[in-house]
Amino acid sequence: MLPVAGVEIGAVAAGFRYTGRPDLMMAVFADGTAAAGVFTRTKAPAAPVDWSKGALSENGGTAKALVVNAGNANAFTGERGMKAATKSAEVAAAIVGCAPNEVMLASTGVIGVPMNGSLFEKPLETIHAGLSGALWKDAARAIMTTDTFPKGGSRVAEVEGRPVTISGFAKGSGMIAPDMATMLGFVFTNAALTPACLQAILSEATDLSFNSITVDGDTSTNDTVLAFATGQNVRFDPIDDPNDPRLDNFKACFTDLMTDLAQQIVRDGEGATKFVSVTIEGAENDAAARTIAKSVANSPLVKTAIAGEDPNWGRLVMAVGKAGEAADRDKLQIWIGGQQVAKNGAVHPRYSEPEAAAHMKGQEIDIRINVGVADGTATVWTCDLTYDYIRINADYRS
Amino acid sequence: MLPVAGVEIGAVAAGFRYTGRPDLMMAVFADGTAAAGVFTRTKAPAAPVDWSKGALSENGGTAKALVVNAGNANAFTGERGMKAATKSAEVAAAIVGCAPNEVMLASTGVIGVPMNGSLFEKPLETIHAGLSGALWKDAARAIMTTDTFPKGGSRVAEVEGRPVTISGFAKGSGMIAPDMATMLGFVFTNAALTPACLQAILSEATDLSFNSITVDGDTSTNDTVLAFATGQNVRFDPIDDPNDPRLDNFKACFTDLMTDLAQQIVRDGEGATKFVSVTIEGAENDAAARTIAKSVANSPLVKTAIAGEDPNWGRLVMAVGKAGEAADRDKLQIWIGGQQVAKNGAVHPRYSEPEAAAHMKGQEIDIRINVGVADGTATVWTCDLTYDYIRINADYRS
Repeated sequence: MLPVAGVEIGAVAAGFRYTGRPDLMMAVFADGTAAAGVFTRTKAPAAPVDWSKGALSENGGTAKALVVNAGNANAFTGERGMKAATKSAEVAAAIVGCAPNEVMLASTGVIGVPMNGSLFEKPLETIHAGLSGALWKDAARAIMTTDTFPKGGSRVAEVEGRPVTISGFAKGSGMIAPDMATMLGFVFTNAALTPACLQAILSEATDLSFNSITVDGDTSTNDTVLAFATGQNVRFDPIDDPNDPRLDNFKACFTDLMTDLAQQIVRDGEGATKFVSVTIEGAENDAAARTIAKSVANSPLVKTAIAGEDPNWGRLVMAVGKAGEAADRDKLQIWIGGQQVAKNGAVHPRYSEPEAAAHMKGQEIDIRINVGVADGTATVWTCDLTYDYIRINADYRS
Repeated sequence: MLPVAGVEIGAVAAGFRYTGRPDLMMAVFADGTAAAGVFTRTKAPAAPVDWSKGALSENGGTAKALVVNAGNANAFTGERGMKAATKSAEVAAAIVGCAPNEVMLASTGVIGVPMNGSLFEKPLETIHAGLSGALWKDAARAIMTTDTFPKGGSRVAEVEGRPVTISGFAKGSGMIAPDMATMLGFVFTNAALTPACLQAILSEATDLSFNSITVDGDTSTNDTVLAFATGQNVRFDPIDDPNDPRLDNFKACFTDLMTDLAQQIVRDGEGATKFVSVTIEGAENDAAARTIAKSVANSPLVKTAIAGEDPNWGRLVMAVGKAGEAADRDKLQIWIGGQQVAKNGAVHPRYSEPEAAAHMKGQEIDIRINVGVADGTATVWTCDLTYDYIRINADYRS
């Protein structure tokens, strides 16, 4: 991961749950850094989600620091949870020298275990003393729960003919880890953007990336994606219009990095043996296409068929049908690994099952379905549903 | 299963897919029998679903015969599928002596395999020659696919102080069988009801029974529930008002039988080791309660925790939150096996995890959640998600 002008970062083992590994990270930003966020849509959000949403709305979209811990989600912890979150932001603010609402928070880990906000103080002092522009991989490691590898990446975009860096990291092995079912993503750039512009770019990119992956359809109490734009080392004034053509390449690179991070999460889906792309075409609109794609990608019958390397296209028909969006059964077309399997609502006369079965034996599975209604399209990425998913998630917590 | 006046029934091995077992059944009704149906909401319904819906609407809600086969779903079979369905109804109509649209059809089995409507002729003649008022269990067996036991039952209700019989059978091991993911239910009574009255009673009972069970959230192309009221051996004229107080006991018995059949399906969920009741209280309304209950009952994280005998209430919070219906996180209350686990949005101070864990080791798991908004309630029944679910569904079809 490339350094980003205006971002210093660090991580430490604070002992929230794990021993012998960093589980707390902090990033500190140059003054005037714009911030934007996308949060879980759950009706039972964790305290840090409420905190960061509220802070962004209070301060108009700026941030001086980001603090993330792993091991305790501070979710379903009642009033004490919000007190602990507030305390941790106050502690970080005092160390960094800013208002508490300029501190963004995110947590991941066990649900329902009370958190002590004072636990943050000494570790954050230690991190602050050792902040560096280079410790990205440490930060990516510190936010892991049952992830088997740290997830990160960088892109260099061009704005007005000069390079701008975008770096980010994420965690999550889908929604499948015992008690630690959170997806977190953080993206940092030295581009100069107004908060509203950054929010627009982040929201659109999130739809095409983090909101286009699924492991089992479960949604966490803590899901959070935050973006920060420092405006350092650039020669242009903050851009306010997300449709400004100067941002075309930047937006493409930003979305590409977010998609890369999201796909890394799917590839780390626990128990996953295959990476599956589901593309829906011909839907009423793009949103309908995404709904149908998620219906396919979340179907246990489809996902177990993929685990069993079975080109079971009947289950694809079932999953399209149950999505509830318009689909013309008698115009339905299905492709598996590029081969057309079905057309006009029935099996294709030249369908070769051995050819489809050979594709299913690979690790990258491509499913494409045209539902024959209009022009809406969407692609969703998922993994298969295996014995190991059950093993991991049926394990008793203690 | 008790005989029902005005219903004669039979089954035979027709060889649609299986050998050595009956896979085709027919019931023949007294003249003037009222019929009603509830069908899959899929956008890709199978031909027999389209047929039966159309026939009921054409003939005003009456039936002379019911024909059901197992082994071939006649789904996603294009125009040929509807031709085959039409042919099979014509064949049955000629044998029984009625109009084709007085024949109700249902199929279950492999999707996408063309069906030959002429295959019905000889077996239906055989069945017709041996029709009897007693062959209910044969019929219940004939509609099985991967079911491990036939599912049926009877109730005797009282209308105007005299007994009325209700008998029914069903098939389905949830939506989890390879390629044969269909739930079928058929209920027969000698009560005298108008078609509109029967439809109203059936629709309400279906919501509380077949629409309140879930194995994996997948929806079949062929799901069908049909009810028939012969009006034989009763001393009252056909009742038209479903709210007529004379029907109070009948409706309770009807719903009780439907619920029994639906629960038999859940208990036969393949791979299932536990029968799980999820009751939601305090929702905005009953429909919202059912949505939340299904979100809990379909969550892979909840279902694997149950398989692992883990009273993992954090996952219940997650599943309530993701349902999208109103829930007050800070008033949420959760009970597992009667013990209160959480109140006011946090763990209950006297929660005993060993006591909850002991309940989870049983075969009947009770989960109750109050979401603290209003008075809506619903109960949904499901099973756990086990290794065997994966084994069964990842098996290659051939």
